[in-house]
Amino acid sequence: MSLNVAFSMGEDVFARIFPPQRRAHLGSSLPVLADEPLTTFRSPLADAVLPGVGVLITGWGAPMVDEAVLDRAPKLRYVIHAGGSVKHHLDAACWARGIEVSTAATANAVPVAEYTVAAILMANKKVLQLNAALKSTRGHINPDAMFPEMGNFEKRVGLVGASRIGRHVIELLKPYALEVVVADPYLDAAVARDLGVTLVELDELASTSDVISLHAPSLASTHNLISERVIGLMKPGATFINTARGELVDQDALIRRLCKQDLYAILDVTTPWDLPADNQLYDLPNVLLTPHAAGSLGTELQRLAVTAIEEANRVAEGGELVHRVAVEDLLLMA
Amino acid sequence: MSLNVAFSMGEDVFARIFPPQRRAHLGSSLPVLADEPLTTFRSPLADAVLPGVGVLITGWGAPMVDEAVLDRAPKLRYVIHAGGSVKHHLDAACWARGIEVSTAATANAVPVAEYTVAAILMANKKVLQLNAALKSTRGHINPDAMFPEMGNFEKRVGLVGASRIGRHVIELLKPYALEVVVADPYLDAAVARDLGVTLVELDELASTSDVISLHAPSLASTHNLISERVIGLMKPGATFINTARGELVDQDALIRRLCKQDLYAILDVTTPWDLPADNQLYDLPNVLLTPHAAGSLGTELQRLAVTAIEEANRVAEGGELVHRVAVEDLLLMA
Ligand SMILES: NC(=O)c1ccc[n+]([C@@H]2O[C@H](COP(=O)([O-])OP(=O)(O)OC[C@H]3O[C@@H](n4cnc5c(N)ncnc54)[C@H](O)[C@@H]3O)[C@@H](O)[C@H]2O)c1
Ligand SMILES: NC(=O)c1ccc[n+]([C@@H]2O[C@H](COP(=O)([O-])OP(=O)(O)OC[C@H]3O[C@@H](n4cnc5c(N)ncnc54)[C@H](O)[C@@H]3O)[C@@H](O)[C@H]2O)c1
Repeated sequence: MSLNVAFSMGEDVFARIFPPQRRAHLGSSLPVLADEPLTTFRSPLADAVLPGVGVLITGWGAPMVDEAVLDRAPKLRYVIHAGGSVKHHLDAACWARGIEVSTAATANAVPVAEYTVAAILMANKKVLQLNAALKSTRGHINPDAMFPEMGNFEKRVGLVGASRIGRHVIELLKPYALEVVVADPYLDAAVARDLGVTLVELDELASTSDVISLHAPSLASTHNLISERVIGLMKPGATFINTARGELVDQDALIRRLCKQDLYAILDVTTPWDLPADNQLYDLPNVLLTPHAAGSLGTELQRLAVTAIEEANRVAEGGELVHRVAVEDLLLMA
Repeated sequence: MSLNVAFSMGEDVFARIFPPQRRAHLGSSLPVLADEPLTTFRSPLADAVLPGVGVLITGWGAPMVDEAVLDRAPKLRYVIHAGGSVKHHLDAACWARGIEVSTAATANAVPVAEYTVAAILMANKKVLQLNAALKSTRGHINPDAMFPEMGNFEKRVGLVGASRIGRHVIELLKPYALEVVVADPYLDAAVARDLGVTLVELDELASTSDVISLHAPSLASTHNLISERVIGLMKPGATFINTARGELVDQDALIRRLCKQDLYAILDVTTPWDLPADNQLYDLPNVLLTPHAAGSLGTELQRLAVTAIEEANRVAEGGELVHRVAVEDLLLMA
């Protein structure tokens, strides 16, 4: 089957991850309608492309596909997203009209899980704390005396959410002598056993884990999931990692606890996304901050493009989408 | 066969890793002669213990076992070290007299390799750089614009030394999309292939790797291995990790290069061991320093004790040492 392909995403993203060499990996039955991306659907290019497009490959910065756009794209059968969440650029109308949707969220989970593994190993080993102590002491320090319980041996890691990212963290932690417990209301105990982890309630996870890492999606039901009460349960000396979303955490309560200097935090996400200049998280020495960088960036963006092109080739050859998003998945997905 | 056991190591190490519960794991044919360690061989306790000891379990802080000590320990058959190197507390006389020696260096390699993996993942992801930039900017920063080539995808990691630690790093890096090259004059290409890595010359490794991590032992032949010339070959933006020994590196040349701010370093070891207060490594923002903390510390010390007790039980049941150190191994070992 022949299906015309078009791209919609930011120009910079397109230039980086879909250069001509990459597009050349699209099979011969996937002719590309335009060598530049649709950055908006209100343009002469969109008018020219939409009537014939069969596969729309989207990426970060893609404009919203809604009823009006779909009316102009009668041949559209697949939207393949070279990114994570599809919630912000695909209207429910896509599913209502039977368009098949795919996401590269599984590929995007990889770097986030890798960042988390590095953060867990560093946290148990007190790497950042030792660096700071050494640089301020400027002489001999005794790590064992400072942190008698340090080390990546028989520590408990608590993952909130057996999401795509949470599951990849579980897999990557297999070679280490760390016990992994998971809190997730949608995970059943038998599946947890197959994953090699123990299913626990969030309170037990928070009060017994040496490192707590958040991997739940942002949903109405997860806002403030890490509440003041849950933060209060965390053990002195524990590390809290958030690579999920800031709104899952009572950030004011977290800051109050961090000010006591008996908890560490590694935060890739906050509320708001860019913290105002006077936010205390910039000052706290027990906080490591990164600017929403755990996901695919730099060379890692290639992985998303590869996933999208494989998916397009699969359907062009008569196969099924491997990373299909059903409309009901949207309720629980990031 | 019944063999009397004695311990020799620092009192603190003994108290932490060989408490009564741990010693209870020694089989019934391994009676313990003293409930405290020999911290010296010039003591009434040593006079009482040495004549009957068959297995000496040593640890950090153990005094030297030389001819004179061996003369007083005619029944000694095994020295089992619950630590890494045996070079500093066992005289060549031990081997000359046919005493069998074992080391927990393989167990001690585990935390060093884990620290290295965390350091590699952080380095490629520019975690420390982004944290510093965010904390000084106190507002929006764009990681992709700052580091267009960041990410743990299709990066080259160069390991100097397929040592115990180097090999464990290779194993732990298997699940990542990283290419591993190794420089080691004692590794042959067929073994490298089995390990899943490419054997290269040190110069090629230094000039092509995104992260260079040092895992060679300190030998006359390795002093200054990372010379001014080799340091000069490292790519702008690369990260150099040293968890091996300071004397393997021309530290002055490294500092000069680091002052140019186009190389990053993560250093667990330096020369001297404790840097003087005016050393520039304390000040350079592109350097992370830890105080010889990559090896077993805190809870990780347990792993060494477990290894030593398993080894003692094995020989008491008529088995062979699994972690035997032959005298010729000393020439190449850390
Ligand atoms: N920092 C980054 O750059 C970055 C990149 C990608 C994703 N993310 C974030 O990471 C998180 C995980 O993403 P994902 O793609 O793995 O998610 P996902 O879509 O795979 O997560 C869905 C799963 O979350 C679990 N879940 C739902 N409600 C929960 C609750 N109350 N408690 C615990 N678990 C619950 C369920 O198992 C559900 O199936 C999201 O918040 C996402 O926005 C961040
Ligand atoms: N930071 C810490 O806390 C810590 C803890 C343990 C070990 N170490 C250090 O880590 C390093 C590795 O220790 P190990 O126990 O894995 O070593 P090892 O004894 O297993 O290393 C021996 C191997 O090193 C390799 N080698 C020898 N000369 C080499 C050269 N010129 N170039 C490259 N490779 C060479 C050979 O393969 C040799 O077999 C040592 O320097 C050791 O002192 C540091």
